[in-house]
Amino acid sequence: MAEASLDELIEALRRLPGVGQKSAQRMAYHLLQNDRAGAGRLALALQQALARMQHCERCHTFTEHRICATCQDAARDARQLCVVEAPADQAALERSGGYRGLYFVLMGRLSPLDGVGIDDIGARQLIERACDGVVSEVILATGFSAEGEATAHALGEALRSRGLKVTRLARGVPAGSELEYVDLSTIAHALVDRR
Amino acid sequence: MAEASLDELIEALRRLPGVGQKSAQRMAYHLLQNDRAGAGRLALALQQALARMQHCERCHTFTEHRICATCQDAARDARQLCVVEAPADQAALERSGGYRGLYFVLMGRLSPLDGVGIDDIGARQLIERACDGVVSEVILATGFSAEGEATAHALGEALRSRGLKVTRLARGVPAGSELEYVDLSTIAHALVDRR
Repeated sequence: MAEASLDELIEALRRLPGVGQKSAQRMAYHLLQNDRAGAGRLALALQQALARMQHCERCHTFTEHRICATCQDAARDARQLCVVEAPADQAALERSGGYRGLYFVLMGRLSPLDGVGIDDIGARQLIERACDGVVSEVILATGFSAEGEATAHALGEALRSRGLKVTRLARGVPAGSELEYVDLSTIAHALVDRR
Repeated sequence: MAEASLDELIEALRRLPGVGQKSAQRMAYHLLQNDRAGAGRLALALQQALARMQHCERCHTFTEHRICATCQDAARDARQLCVVEAPADQAALERSGGYRGLYFVLMGRLSPLDGVGIDDIGARQLIERACDGVVSEVILATGFSAEGEATAHALGEALRSRGLKVTRLARGVPAGSELEYVDLSTIAHALVDRR
């Protein structure tokens, strides 16, 4: 049953995050047997995204344009700059409806063990961006994992040393939670940050 | 953040079996950010598989050739024909090492609720194939789900009425199982089929 193009398709699907050998096989058979139109559409979508998507020159998120729609939006508050790890985090903040400023997307986070240093997440570009004379507050909204915290710490130091006001998203009890089921470290932080 | 080619890529990835909105997003960002080579490879693999893979004229499995390698293998016993639902089932039987005959791959199973009838799973082609004068035994190896059983029943009737010897994979206790943890219906079947 060695069929080169089937094996190659399964191998290529395996490289997707979260897809193992069995899933890749199932996907390949499904596409060939039940959804040839979907397979063609996916091939085209991949090629078009590769050809068209680039990084916004101002905030580094993915965009088809030189400057993304958010950065071009004159209705947004250019005095606030929110730093996130990834476009998905930006999308989550947008959905919350609580933020009307601009963004800077690191496209990663510090991870010394994987060889990701401060220059690999665009710290220099962030500092340049934040020192445009308009930004008055940088909100660090990297994750609250160890790596996200380290990233926030390193960026915060660098930005404060340039005289910028730097804030961090509040830690605390998630909305709708029963205290009984919230982990102890979250409760401890919520106590320290009480207002 | 409306970016047509990114949205289209996420939509196309969502059509893969087992992939929801969040996974599709994660895959799209991963490909664009960390694995552009993998994205290009996947696009090419999809196109090549679509262009090259077809159904074997004898057993209906996927192959790049008119007749697949298994059907062409003169060392296999052409008197036995094993009927499976899908190429993955054929691969499992091959791995077991217990079968040296030929195959017929239904590429589906009876599913009246989904409008899949006996003609949609190639019953006519199977009967033609089994009546080649060489096949002396048809082994029904469809699954032991309700649909797999119904498929085996319908095909078994049709094949027996042409005077062919028809057998079914044995049901019983899986190798390595403790009886204590085997479900009751399996034990009941293992009792009936005791030898």
